[in-house]
Amino acid sequence: MKLHPLWQEYPALQPELRQTLTLMEDSIKLKNKPVAAAILSMIHSGGKLLRPAYQLLFSQFGPEQDRKKAVSLAASIEMLHTATLVHDDIVDQADLRRGLQTIRSEFGNAVAVYAGDFLFVCCFKLMADYASSLRSLQINSRSMEKILNGELGQMDTRYATDVTIAEYLENISGKTAELFSLSCSVGALESGTSERFAKECGDIGQNIGMAFQIIDDILDYSENVTTIGKPVLEDVRQGVYSLPLLLALQKAPQKFLPLLEKRATITDAEVETLYAYVHEFGGVAAAKAYATEYTDKALKGIKKLPNNDLNTKKTLLQLTQTILDRKN
Amino acid sequence: MKLHPLWQEYPALQPELRQTLTLMEDSIKLKNKPVAAAILSMIHSGGKLLRPAYQLLFSQFGPEQDRKKAVSLAASIEMLHTATLVHDDIVDQADLRRGLQTIRSEFGNAVAVYAGDFLFVCCFKLMADYASSLRSLQINSRSMEKILNGELGQMDTRYATDVTIAEYLENISGKTAELFSLSCSVGALESGTSERFAKECGDIGQNIGMAFQIIDDILDYSENVTTIGKPVLEDVRQGVYSLPLLLALQKAPQKFLPLLEKRATITDAEVETLYAYVHEFGGVAAAKAYATEYTDKALKGIKKLPNNDLNTKKTLLQLTQTILDRKN
Repeated sequence: MKLHPLWQEYPALQPELRQTLTLMEDSIKLKNKPVAAAILSMIHSGGKLLRPAYQLLFSQFGPEQDRKKAVSLAASIEMLHTATLVHDDIVDQADLRRGLQTIRSEFGNAVAVYAGDFLFVCCFKLMADYASSLRSLQINSRSMEKILNGELGQMDTRYATDVTIAEYLENISGKTAELFSLSCSVGALESGTSERFAKECGDIGQNIGMAFQIIDDILDYSENVTTIGKPVLEDVRQGVYSLPLLLALQKAPQKFLPLLEKRATITDAEVETLYAYVHEFGGVAAAKAYATEYTDKALKGIKKLPNNDLNTKKTLLQLTQTILDRKN
Repeated sequence: MKLHPLWQEYPALQPELRQTLTLMEDSIKLKNKPVAAAILSMIHSGGKLLRPAYQLLFSQFGPEQDRKKAVSLAASIEMLHTATLVHDDIVDQADLRRGLQTIRSEFGNAVAVYAGDFLFVCCFKLMADYASSLRSLQINSRSMEKILNGELGQMDTRYATDVTIAEYLENISGKTAELFSLSCSVGALESGTSERFAKECGDIGQNIGMAFQIIDDILDYSENVTTIGKPVLEDVRQGVYSLPLLLALQKAPQKFLPLLEKRATITDAEVETLYAYVHEFGGVAAAKAYATEYTDKALKGIKKLPNNDLNTKKTLLQLTQTILDRKN
């Protein structure tokens, strides 16, 4: 089973990440073979496994070192993440993800609805089977509530040119950061740390997630992309305006509004113009300042964590720095 | 808040069913107001609340009589049921349910995906908050797995004219009976009964659910329907062949196959012909024999239950007899 090349630098994490993948694979018990195959191919499509990795790392802080349980809960969080991707692809009418056909485009919306539901159930089952108490499931259900509120919030603001930065941040806080936060807090809590310590871990995860999503949004505007901004094109056409665009829009509304008003009918050439405006009016640079702020908060939080034999703190610092410095 | 007229005969159950509805209502906390309104209107669209009613009744058998908890868990099962309906409507491309526009047809598939997910999360949250242990959540997650396997199984057999009766029964066992079974077993277990007793309650629920779904399928072929078989028309056109049709088809394949081969292009007049054939070749009568068998098993199971002060057994007998004798 191949892991993302990112993990070559982290040999100590590799065995548990491999076990996480194997456990996810073993959980896909479906009589409907084509659907099972589609879910399996999605699991093996080379996702970074960041959420389970953080969960595994934060589970090294408590006194209870049951690694089978840690791996099972790491698998549960990745299944939850995968479930949200399968359903998001329906909503976004996406055809490709990680270079593979989406379940929706290969099998249609009907199968994708149930496939996502099935992944939710797998997450729920692993948690019910391996968590030590109902507490993590309570935290998990509240996180899922926030995630859905974020998704629905983003839908609500489609094509809205008056989205405030606060609204954008609230939406990504639900859409992305919440799941990072959950990974870190449940990882710690289920290894037997105090609720208070687990909450601090959750805050670190929240900051990592915020920075991660903002950097994702910035990379869509990267000048390295050869075919100009495929993601930008899709997002803009679907009315999803991310931070670099929103920040530039505030600087020069007169330039942006006539183009954005075209909504789904905006041409490729017009998106290229928008793309240039985002750079010209400092949207990318201003978004980078936000990413830096959240990154700094996350690193500061990690530095305050206690030392342990596994040197978890050092690994967390290295991993977080690496993914938040990424250029693609 | 109006309850379904069915409950007029059960005054003792009314207050807790009303509380169940109120709790469901209070759980819908969404910033996206139109979606919240759509979910609320679905909750108030006059569903029979059979699953929570059975859950509440079976929760009267154990020593722990925490009625707030019983109501919360009853609400959780109805939210799970509602979640499956919202997602089923996407899969079936249904426009109407209980005389109201479906969420899918009013707001589109995207909203319906997230609305169903949100209802799943509400179910999960109520269970995590009110269940006494992880055991019920483990049972619940396994039930959800079976339900999805049933749904996907039904999809798999669309337009298949060689579906066996065993396959049909397995699909409805997942699609419908499992949730009745879950209501009864979790109701009992969370009131502090033994696992063994709870399992017997689950078996009763399973038989009730099987009879309930078969009767539903028979009623689609009822001679009382004035506008001939709207549900039959839709189901046949979408390739969902239920028990009366399957049983008649086995008797006279030469009559049925030429019509069924037309799949989605079958005309209204041809469906009327099919409808007549189902009666002519004894499909309805044979299906009734199945319904009677499951009903008898359910009633036999209920009669074996212990007596208690609330006379729960008598209520269960009356309710089960009523819903399984229903004519519409």
